[in-house]
Amino acid sequence: MTTLATPAAAAAPTLSPAAIIEGAKRLAAYRAVDEHFPQNARYVGIGSGSTVVYVVERIAQLPRDRTDHVVFIPTGFQSKELILKAGLKLGAIDMYTDLDVVFDGADEVDPFLNCIKGGGACLFQEKLVAISGRKFVVVADFRKLSPSLSTHYAPGIPIEVVPPAAQYVLSRLVALGSTGPTIRMGGASKAGPCITDNGNFIIDAPFQDGFIPASASPRPISPSVDAGLGERVGGSDVLGKEEGHPGAAVGMGVGANEHVEELAKTLKSIVGVVEHGIFWGGDKKPVMAYFGMEDGSVAVRGHH
Amino acid sequence: MTTLATPAAAAAPTLSPAAIIEGAKRLAAYRAVDEHFPQNARYVGIGSGSTVVYVVERIAQLPRDRTDHVVFIPTGFQSKELILKAGLKLGAIDMYTDLDVVFDGADEVDPFLNCIKGGGACLFQEKLVAISGRKFVVVADFRKLSPSLSTHYAPGIPIEVVPPAAQYVLSRLVALGSTGPTIRMGGASKAGPCITDNGNFIIDAPFQDGFIPASASPRPISPSVDAGLGERVGGSDVLGKEEGHPGAAVGMGVGANEHVEELAKTLKSIVGVVEHGIFWGGDKKPVMAYFGMEDGSVAVRGHH
Amino acid sequence: MTTLATPAAAAAPTLSPAAIIEGAKRLAAYRAVDEHFPQNARYVGIGSGSTVVYVVERIAQLPRDRTDHVVFIPTGFQSKELILKAGLKLGAIDMYTDLDVVFDGADEVDPFLNCIKGGGACLFQEKLVAISGRKFVVVADFRKLSPSLSTHYAPGIPIEVVPPAAQYVLSRLVALGSTGPTIRMGGASKAGPCITDNGNFIIDAPFQDGFIPASASPRPISPSVDAGLGERVGGSDVLGKEEGHPGAAVGMGVGANEHVEELAKTLKSIVGVVEHGIFWGGDKKPVMAYFGMEDGSVAVRGHH
Amino acid sequence: MTTLATPAAAAAPTLSPAAIIEGAKRLAAYRAVDEHFPQNARYVGIGSGSTVVYVVERIAQLPRDRTDHVVFIPTGFQSKELILKAGLKLGAIDMYTDLDVVFDGADEVDPFLNCIKGGGACLFQEKLVAISGRKFVVVADFRKLSPSLSTHYAPGIPIEVVPPAAQYVLSRLVALGSTGPTIRMGGASKAGPCITDNGNFIIDAPFQDGFIPASASPRPISPSVDAGLGERVGGSDVLGKEEGHPGAAVGMGVGANEHVEELAKTLKSIVGVVEHGIFWGGDKKPVMAYFGMEDGSVAVRGHH
Repeated sequence: MTTLATPAAAAAPTLSPAAIIEGAKRLAAYRAVDEHFPQNARYVGIGSGSTVVYVVERIAQLPRDRTDHVVFIPTGFQSKELILKAGLKLGAIDMYTDLDVVFDGADEVDPFLNCIKGGGACLFQEKLVAISGRKFVVVADFRKLSPSLSTHYAPGIPIEVVPPAAQYVLSRLVALGSTGPTIRMGGASKAGPCITDNGNFIIDAPFQDGFIPASASPRPISPSVDAGLGERVGGSDVLGKEEGHPGAAVGMGVGANEHVEELAKTLKSIVGVVEHGIFWGGDKKPVMAYFGMEDGSVAVRGHH
Repeated sequence: MTTLATPAAAAAPTLSPAAIIEGAKRLAAYRAVDEHFPQNARYVGIGSGSTVVYVVERIAQLPRDRTDHVVFIPTGFQSKELILKAGLKLGAIDMYTDLDVVFDGADEVDPFLNCIKGGGACLFQEKLVAISGRKFVVVADFRKLSPSLSTHYAPGIPIEVVPPAAQYVLSRLVALGSTGPTIRMGGASKAGPCITDNGNFIIDAPFQDGFIPASASPRPISPSVDAGLGERVGGSDVLGKEEGHPGAAVGMGVGANEHVEELAKTLKSIVGVVEHGIFWGGDKKPVMAYFGMEDGSVAVRGHH
Repeated sequence: MTTLATPAAAAAPTLSPAAIIEGAKRLAAYRAVDEHFPQNARYVGIGSGSTVVYVVERIAQLPRDRTDHVVFIPTGFQSKELILKAGLKLGAIDMYTDLDVVFDGADEVDPFLNCIKGGGACLFQEKLVAISGRKFVVVADFRKLSPSLSTHYAPGIPIEVVPPAAQYVLSRLVALGSTGPTIRMGGASKAGPCITDNGNFIIDAPFQDGFIPASASPRPISPSVDAGLGERVGGSDVLGKEEGHPGAAVGMGVGANEHVEELAKTLKSIVGVVEHGIFWGGDKKPVMAYFGMEDGSVAVRGHH
Repeated sequence: MTTLATPAAAAAPTLSPAAIIEGAKRLAAYRAVDEHFPQNARYVGIGSGSTVVYVVERIAQLPRDRTDHVVFIPTGFQSKELILKAGLKLGAIDMYTDLDVVFDGADEVDPFLNCIKGGGACLFQEKLVAISGRKFVVVADFRKLSPSLSTHYAPGIPIEVVPPAAQYVLSRLVALGSTGPTIRMGGASKAGPCITDNGNFIIDAPFQDGFIPASASPRPISPSVDAGLGERVGGSDVLGKEEGHPGAAVGMGVGANEHVEELAKTLKSIVGVVEHGIFWGGDKKPVMAYFGMEDGSVAVRGHH
């Protein structure tokens, strides 16, 4: 698929665990770029997160005649800086609505490739860029792999809300079963609520164990039926095994995907909700996701 | 229902047509207040528009012990001024999510009491206040009565959109069949797009003849089945007749209401859409609507 | 200064007055571009207004090797569209802080080349682009020529204000002598106040006759001492004469410029004022201004 | 001045240092309220910070007939919650421009009672409320006492900036001598820049040692000449001694106050600056400041 040399696996025995993971993230990002950066790209979306740094690093290594005429569309402040520092041409999403491919990170990815994004409060522009891409490719590390959304990513689903509607949306979220939704505060940077780039609030809405009622999961099936075959490179097959044993994937029965979709639709329908952090089939989920693993390998999810 | 004296009908023979209508609007507003202002009101929403001026006028005439402890929640700048000038107590919608009743105008009202609002670009806060009301009551003039939405109100459905998503939303609206959606400009006040109080754009999306495909209307029925019995006071029964002859109501066949609901849901589901100007059963439509008529009478729609 | 052919004077005897003026505006814009578009331009600011249309028209006529590598920075929505339609390369002011030259219109220009801008509510970005230019060049029509600011442009000085501070700023403006400052409304586009692209209000603050106390003008002098020699091309010298007779220029005595500067400084110092529409020496005034005249000629103000 | 009982000094020997300070902060807040809450108050501003909690606590202890008719104006989200939880009547600063008194915290206070505020990114509304008060009273703890601004409060002066102007403002700040001004990031809450409630950025601009050139301080004088007599209650007189020995107050010479004022004026004059965190005589500085001290006492600065 590509003639670029990929770096040797980073998992040398003397490296620290952190360095091993970092190497795996780089490996994942490089592979994602090598497999998905189009030969005649015109518009490419660049997301944010620690793994996307390596995505841009790899793109900058491509022959200049493959990147010179490409406009790169950022999802936010960090992406913008990455693009400029790499000497690439910067565009803006309000100008381009048809991108060849979009590379971005994720806060959590389930076996159906549904994602949660928005830990950084920038989910709106991230989703706008993602849906503008013909292909959406996720790169992340192993901690983002999850049997079901809202399981590993503790704060819950980030939801962007027009400020005067915050109390109303909170009440609706509680009615939907969210366990303790809260307006995100600004922390050390800002007293009072965190404000998004669009001037809105973020509500973090946790749901229990992937928000799937037990009765809705009568017939567990392999996620690979829906989400494609898992694959490992340069490492063990532990993940592969898990995927082969769907019973081990909590809450991943028949209807898991449907419940994600139903929740996604319901959240967006609430008056006051601008957008939420569930990236699903109805707006956009990745065609493929690459994960840097603990052991220095890369796990790939999705159809080739 | 009320012991307050209502003013004599304004339709004295020597009045100008404009004065007759104005009198009818006042009559409509007074009747709406008399029939819907609760005995022990705590929180009351006040919308905007030329008829709402009379709503506030009537509320200010109520005995002070009925209004002194009431907090009035405005839907925007004009309502705020009206409330303050009437010496009433002002609140804000971010503080109260449970209003006893909300009075507001509308740009168009169909026989099912679905409304279009947002000609003034303030649809978001208007909808937020409306859904916070236990009862939503519309007061307007006869020009707002329509056999089907997007028929009489020419600019189409106002849609509030996060600015960078405007091009994407326009493309989606065209795909949905909108005939020439456009970003609303600022006119004499502002070069470039009109900006809402939330910092967003407005797209006006017209749809043909109530956006209902002919094939979807095999069995025209009376709107009164759904929307309640029409009623006139102090005037002719022309409207009543129209309602009794559903065949005359263009596009008002089986499925008309369903199509409004489907469009409303679809619009809100689009990435970039904050809110749209269709007030329907899924978020909030009025329980009753009062219209000042050309002949000085008041037409009432909805269930008593 | 340039080898490009300039069009023949538009003032053919059979043209309508409007067509004559339009021709003069084009002539003014072409001349401004011919005299100020740098040989090795890298970054060029493009403002808005009816005359700027001809600026972009002229730039698009330049040899492509003079414009191909130039990034054009718009001051707003209209400029953005003009740049893109002309096939020029679009940039954004948040990326570039050192522009070679900026071309823009103005609502009023006094003999010292102080300007009022902001009739279109976009004064903030216009000023930001202007101060980022090494040279700021104004193109306009004769109606914008004024003996003193706030004389010909009736609404007064547009002032961008953070919304909750509007009442406070109004009270301060009255204290400063403004005759009836008002919050600009949204007109037909929007109920309630006009909102700027930055989410703020505009207050229009008129001042009487150039806000210059009579006692402050003891020693009238020629504006040309300060503002450079007036010059006409292709037309009569009426304007030149006026400039030679400073006594005829109302309120243009000693101190006129100082009063503009003092007012500009005072306005910006008010809590709640984001920016005002006076473009003066302390932030940026044009080095030269070109005006399309009623008789088809071009009047030029400023030092060559 | 008041007949309310003040609590006994908190400095019991067995308390932890933190508890002693907390007791002193409460003592400071109570005393500020007792000395400055008007007998016939109508509008009172409430700021934010850990000491303001005790301000509201004390106000809630006042006889209800002194507070029932008072509208309390918050400077932000936290103040709003405090007011509501205390059962007090909430107003908004866009409605009231003449407050009887405003109580707020500060990040740093110099001997002239100039303050730095804005560590919580809410400096704009805090300044708007402060200037709307006839009296502005600061309550804080001893760490906020400083010989000169930008000395103890390390991040520097918080400056609210319209986002597209951020690069320009940074360049101007460096030219003014700021040592490393930076756009404040959102930290754990938000990727990219922190956004204020007005949709703007914050730049933190540090200046060396109170930004006062050594040569500008030929004749150190006692700050008490300008800032009033320091005073202690219930504790040692260490602070008093320091104030009596002006030589010990670094950078507090002649011109210190003038330099603060000059910097304050210059910062506000920069295109793109909405407001800065220096609260000085030209907009508003406190008439009196109360500090909870390490030893459980209260230090008071300002004229009685």
